[in-house]
Order: sequence, then C-alpha cells, then structure tokens
Amino acid sequence: MSLDRLREEVLEANLEIVRRGLVLYTFGNVSGIDREAGLVVIKPSGVPYEKLAARDLVITTLDGGMVEGSLRPSSDLATHLALYRAFPGVGGVVHTHSRHATAWAQAGREIPCLGTTHADSFHGPVPVTPEMTADQIAADYEHNTGAVIVRRFEGLDPMRTPAVLVAQHGPFAWGRTAAEAAHNAVVLEEVAHMAALTVALGGGQAISQALLDKHFLRKHGAGRYYGQQDG
Amino acid sequence: MSLDRLREEVLEANLEIVRRGLVLYTFGNVSGIDREAGLVVIKPSGVPYEKLAARDLVITTLDGGMVEGSLRPSSDLATHLALYRAFPGVGGVVHTHSRHATAWAQAGREIPCLGTTHADSFHGPVPVTPEMTADQIAADYEHNTGAVIVRRFEGLDPMRTPAVLVAQHGPFAWGRTAAEAAHNAVVLEEVAHMAALTVALGGGQAISQALLDKHFLRKHGAGRYYGQQDG
Amino acid sequence: MSLDRLREEVLEANLEIVRRGLVLYTFGNVSGIDREAGLVVIKPSGVPYEKLAARDLVITTLDGGMVEGSLRPSSDLATHLALYRAFPGVGGVVHTHSRHATAWAQAGREIPCLGTTHADSFHGPVPVTPEMTADQIAADYEHNTGAVIVRRFEGLDPMRTPAVLVAQHGPFAWGRTAAEAAHNAVVLEEVAHMAALTVALGGGQAISQALLDKHFLRKHGAGRYYGQQDG
Amino acid sequence: MSLDRLREEVLEANLEIVRRGLVLYTFGNVSGIDREAGLVVIKPSGVPYEKLAARDLVITTLDGGMVEGSLRPSSDLATHLALYRAFPGVGGVVHTHSRHATAWAQAGREIPCLGTTHADSFHGPVPVTPEMTADQIAADYEHNTGAVIVRRFEGLDPMRTPAVLVAQHGPFAWGRTAAEAAHNAVVLEEVAHMAALTVALGGGQAISQALLDKHFLRKHGAGRYYGQQDG
Repeated sequence: MSLDRLREEVLEANLEIVRRGLVLYTFGNVSGIDREAGLVVIKPSGVPYEKLAARDLVITTLDGGMVEGSLRPSSDLATHLALYRAFPGVGGVVHTHSRHATAWAQAGREIPCLGTTHADSFHGPVPVTPEMTADQIAADYEHNTGAVIVRRFEGLDPMRTPAVLVAQHGPFAWGRTAAEAAHNAVVLEEVAHMAALTVALGGGQAISQALLDKHFLRKHGAGRYYGQQDG
Repeated sequence: MSLDRLREEVLEANLEIVRRGLVLYTFGNVSGIDREAGLVVIKPSGVPYEKLAARDLVITTLDGGMVEGSLRPSSDLATHLALYRAFPGVGGVVHTHSRHATAWAQAGREIPCLGTTHADSFHGPVPVTPEMTADQIAADYEHNTGAVIVRRFEGLDPMRTPAVLVAQHGPFAWGRTAAEAAHNAVVLEEVAHMAALTVALGGGQAISQALLDKHFLRKHGAGRYYGQQDG
Repeated sequence: MSLDRLREEVLEANLEIVRRGLVLYTFGNVSGIDREAGLVVIKPSGVPYEKLAARDLVITTLDGGMVEGSLRPSSDLATHLALYRAFPGVGGVVHTHSRHATAWAQAGREIPCLGTTHADSFHGPVPVTPEMTADQIAADYEHNTGAVIVRRFEGLDPMRTPAVLVAQHGPFAWGRTAAEAAHNAVVLEEVAHMAALTVALGGGQAISQALLDKHFLRKHGAGRYYGQQDG
Repeated sequence: MSLDRLREEVLEANLEIVRRGLVLYTFGNVSGIDREAGLVVIKPSGVPYEKLAARDLVITTLDGGMVEGSLRPSSDLATHLALYRAFPGVGGVVHTHSRHATAWAQAGREIPCLGTTHADSFHGPVPVTPEMTADQIAADYEHNTGAVIVRRFEGLDPMRTPAVLVAQHGPFAWGRTAAEAAHNAVVLEEVAHMAALTVALGGGQAISQALLDKHFLRKHGAGRYYGQQDG
C-alpha cells in the first residue's frame, strides 16, 4: 500500500471514531503502519477533527523519528509504537476515551465476556493493565504505557483480543488495518456499555468456552461462515 | 403478496431497525415469509445496511434450500426458519443485539411486565431461554437456537408474547408481518430500557392481571378501541 | 382564542413532545381546551405523528361528546377531560410514556425535589397515584385514571405541581396552555432522569423549603424576576 | 479585545453549550469579561437560544450596573460577578444544569479524579459547596451563591480547578476566556458521566498524585507537550 493510501485510511479511521461518538474534542487518535517501509502514520496532537486533512498526518519511523509532517504527532505516539513493535500482526492502533470503556478502565476491571456480542469480536475478556507506578509515570510515560500493555499480553494473542484497558486511563484497540482497529474500538465501547448494564441487572457470569469459541470462530476462525466469502 | 412486495417489506423492516438505533454495523437481520409459496426472504450475511438493496435479499425455502440470491443468507437463517415452522401465525422475524434487551439476555433474566408500556405490546413477561449446552452449540447451533426458543414457548402464545431473549445472546422478535416484527423489536428495546431503570429505582413488581389484560386487549383484543377502526 | 388557533397550538405541542424525544411511535398525546366554548381539541388515536395535520385533530365537549373530526380521539380522552373538569386553571394536558418519568411511575415512587432544576418548575415532589384496583380498571378505565389523579391532588395546587405519575403507567403533565403543558412534560422527563442519577450516587435528600420557594417563586411567583418582563 | 468581539465570543460560547447538549430550553448562561474596561457581557434572562443574537447580550459593570442592553441580564449575573471579582485570572464563566454534573451536585458529592480524562482538565477533584442556609437564600441569593463558591475555593487555585458544583443546584465552570469556560463545562459533564458509571462498577479510587500531575501538566504546565506549540 502506498503511503498516500495509508494516509487516507488513517484519516478515514480517525473520522470514523468521531462519527461513532467515541471522541469528545480531540480525545482520541488513530495510527496505521506500512510494515514494509517501517513507517507509521498518526494523527497530529490536539488538532480538531473537523479541520483534519490527510496532509496534516505525521509520519515517523518505528522508533519515532520524524519523517514527514510539520505538526507534532499525537502525544500518545510512543504507546502506538510500542504496540507495533511488540505485535507484528497489528496494522492499525486506536486510542480513545470512549465513555463506557473508560469507566471500566477507571474502575480497574477487565470486561468479562458476558455474551455473544462480545464473543463475536473478542475471544475472551478484555484485559486491564495494572496501575502504573510513579517511576513508570515520571519518565517516558507514553512509552511505558505501551510497555505495560505488552507485558499484560504475555500469554495472550493480541489478534484474538484486539483491545486493552489501561487502568485509570482508557482503551486502546487495534487490528490488521486502521479501519479494523477503529471497528474494534467501536464494538468495544458497545460491549462495555452492555456489560455495565448487565452487571447492574445482577448479571456478570462469563459465557461458556463452547459459546465463546463458536461465536468468535464462526466469524474469525479458519472455517468462518459469517459474512460473505472472502474474495 | 408478491415476492417483489415481500422483498420491499423485508428491506424496509431491515432499514427501520437501523433508523431506530437497534443495530450497530451489521448486528441484526430481518426476514419475512410468503406462507402460500412457502418462501422466506432474509437479509444477506454481513452486508452493510447503507448498501443493502431489495435485490440483495436472499430467498430460501422453509428448509433453507436456496431459491434466489447470489449472496449468503444471514448466518441466523436456521433460527428464523425454526420459528416460522413452529409458529404458523408469524409472518416476519427480527434478530438484533439491541443494547438493553441484550443486557437482560446477558443477565439471564426475563423482562417482567412492570407497566402499561410493556402491556400494550406483550401480554406478560418477555421470557428468556435457558443457556445452551455445549452439545447444542457444537453442531447445528443456529438451528438449535430456534429449537430452544420453541421449547421455551410451550404453553405460551407466541402472538401474544412476540419476543424472546436468547440467554447470553440477545432478542428475537416477530409479528404477523416483517413491519410488525420490527415494531415489536423497537418496543422491546424501549421496554427493556425502562425496566432496567425501574429496577435501579427499587421497583420490579409486575402489574396486576387486570391491568395487563386491559392494556393488551384494548389494543389487540377482539373489542380493541386503541387506534382507528380497521378498514 | 379561535378554535383554529387552538388546533394549531395543540398540533404544535404534539410535535414538540416528539421533537424532544418523549414519544416512541404514537405513545403520547396532547390536548388543549377553549374554556369559553367548553371545547377540547385532542390528538386522534394511534395516528403517526409524521402524518398528523391540524385538521386530523378531534374536537369534543367537556363530557366527551363528539363535535368535529372523522377520526377516533385518543383513547386517553376521558383522562384529559377529568383533569379539565377538576382543575379550572388548566388549559392543556399532555400524556407520555417518557422513559425516566415512566420508570419512576413503574417503581411506584414520587419524584422528590432534589435540586433547583426541579424547583424551577415544580413546587414540591411530583406525586405518584396509588395503584388502580381491578374495579377501577374493569369499567371506565380511562375516566377512573383521571379520577385517581384528581383524588391524589386533594390538598395540592395543580398549577404549582403541574404533573403526576400514574403508578405502573406513566406521566401526565399540564399547564395554562398546551405549549406550557408540553414544556412541563419535557422538564419532568429531565428532572426524572437527573433524580434517578442522583439516587444512584447515594443522594435523595429533598432540598430545603427555603431553596424550593426561592427557585419556584423567582420564576412563577408574584415578584418573579427570571426571564423578561411580562407584557 | 473590543467589546464587539467579546460579544461575539460570548454568543459563540452560549451556542457551544447548547450544541454540546448541556442546555435544556434556557437552563444555562455564559458571560465574558473585558478586564481592562471592567465590563461584563452576559446572556439575557430566559431568551431562547435559537433567537439569541450578539446585540441581545447585556453589558454591565463588575458591580452589576447596566451599561448596554434593553433586556434583563441572566438572573445568575450576581454569581458571575462574584467569581470575576474573586478570581482575577478568569475571563469567562458558564453556568449550566448539565445532567450528570447536576446529579453529583444534587447528591452533594464532589467528583473525585478517577482517571486521566478528568486529570487532563482538572487538577484534582471538582469540589462541591456546602448547602446554602435559609439566610443566604432569603436575600441576595445569587450574590451569596457566588460567595459560597469563593469561600469553597480558599486554598484552591481556580485556574487549576476551573469548575465547582453548587450543592442541590448545578455546575459553574470558568476559564481564561468564554470559549475556554464553555470547553471546561463540556468536559466537566463528560467527566461527571464517566465518574458515575465508574462508581456504579464499584470503582471510585482517586488516581495517584503522580498520574494527576503528569496528565494535568503535560497539557497545562510550563513544559506542556500536548497539542501544537503555542504561536
């Protein structure tokens, strides 16, 4: 994919999370990566979405070296980069402060898999990180946020659980592309909302492994039969 | 009714549940049946609603044999068919993951009849199925979902309780037509929302049989007097 | 005011409660009265709002005798009439199933006055009726609904508490005009929503008489100074 | 800044809080101050926002003396003036009855800092005033509301905590300009909503001082690096 096309895709994913109500003012950002070129395209920091154009996006290397762009990249860039370096299957990363996912993050609770809406996109609970320590916060905070996420995923497949809650902060989601990452962020917010309502009704029991596997795999497994046949 | 008109009605009902906010992305589907011809018209699987046209709808027999359509039918087709076979009065079926009805389903709780808004459309609580077993999930999952619903309705009149919650999954609603099924799905979501708010306020007591009968029957009984006279 | 102008005002108030999100489908109705002529203008039963025109409105006497209109009046007509007969200051009546007010009604709880938003429009708690008995429901149900409301207001000034919750049913609101009744119905829903959130946060203590009087009277008392000068 | 430009800015901030859903009918008002001229521009009382024009705004001195305008100023003018007199850094003040902030105010609870969304705008909890006494309410109520707020801020920096909850009433927010005040009022409502959801999930623990400082200061401190470089 050309860098121009990646710019367009990252712009579109940034607009998608706004259209879907996940973003207040500038509280969110999406990036995408060109794995062959080793270049990341990311939203500039604090720029209003209504004024955002593809040419405003910032391009950096995987180490954060500036390649193109006259604006500062999102202040969360270092977190995005840590995820790209650790999770080779990831092509796009989204960070939001979407309301219900953030509430779970603020409560320090993972989102259990309470139903098939969740299982259709996430193959198990959406994990929450431990609280960050004063040392992790004091220096390289955004980089350490990424490191905490990566550590939390030891033993987990990030492509089957394409989201995390950073404790006391909010969600990060990802996918094979920026568009898929945005889609997962939107579904995460809906799942977080439903789970909160379920807990309020006295529910909270995770579904069986059989039901979890059935729904995740009929959509994402080798023998998937949800949607139309892949071209 | 001609098949072309049924296609239009099923398309319109699919769009109605989107307009009313019951559907995120492609998480929902509506079908309708031509009882004389024994043919079912249903949404294709995973096709975005904004691109959906009447010609995209899939036509099958009551046993699921493909009659028309180049796209795969909704993966929930077998559940719809089980309902049509068991409930002869049903002309349309809707499945959604609407937020509040799904929360009740995830909590494994039926929705009690807490007020006249509920009683105007549902003549008693909206039942919830038992959880599905690993065996029911392993093979013919969608067909078994229908079978579990049908079993839950032993002793119930599906035309007086035109909806169900599939535990840990979400609601199915139906009606004499696809339009009526969509209407019932919309009302169900509102009733589920109100019931959750009522429970949070310490309520939860079902209304009396007298009030339940009064409201359901003034709208749906032989001597109904709500709305304009039937042509 | 001419009947034509009253028709327009009642139509507009019916549309207002829809625009403000108080009404799903046809679950609501507004009426207005011409006190000199002794005539009531009310929405017809079960007619979709998007098709409603001034000429569709039904005109009856205070005893419910039909004067003009080819459609059936709202099935709640008898409740509206009972309020007009008992409360001579009332010029307009609104009935809705608005979500949060209905939740309080379903829980059988009055809405306490928890803050100044409430006190600006309602001079004390919004009362709830007792549950209706089987006898009250069996015959003349809609008339008896009005009678139960009127009895609940013994000792209360309906112009200072311009709304009520009918237990297990939903709110009625009123005012000097149909427009004011609609306004009160909209504020009631907001106040009900805020009160539910307040209770969930552990609140629920009514404000002092001093604060209640201050806010109600600065807006509605003889020496009011909120808004622009009258006349 | 010219008075004409201040009028435009105050008008725009009044419209912003409506667009963001913070205001029902006329339940809110924004003002701005020209510190050099010692003049305050404020919304007139009870005028519908859809009809509001820059020329309708009222101009007063810091003591409330009328300078320009044919309409009465907002009934909350005296509260705004008290804040301008006590907090010299404040250039704009907003009062709303926004739903979730008001619920916290009605519950008499400060909003604890439960996450980084909060810390990005408020350097600690959003405080709540004590209930006002009958004496404070009886005379100069709106002035005393301001005095109660000012007393609550003893020991607090109003520019680092640019909002307060008036108990049993609702929020006031402020900023260096009317636009910033409106922005803070919008963020406050979101933060109040998230905090209520967090508490419902069993959360409620304030974040560490390290995380609070990091987020507030990366956006508002001397070495801030969120957003683009200041011109």
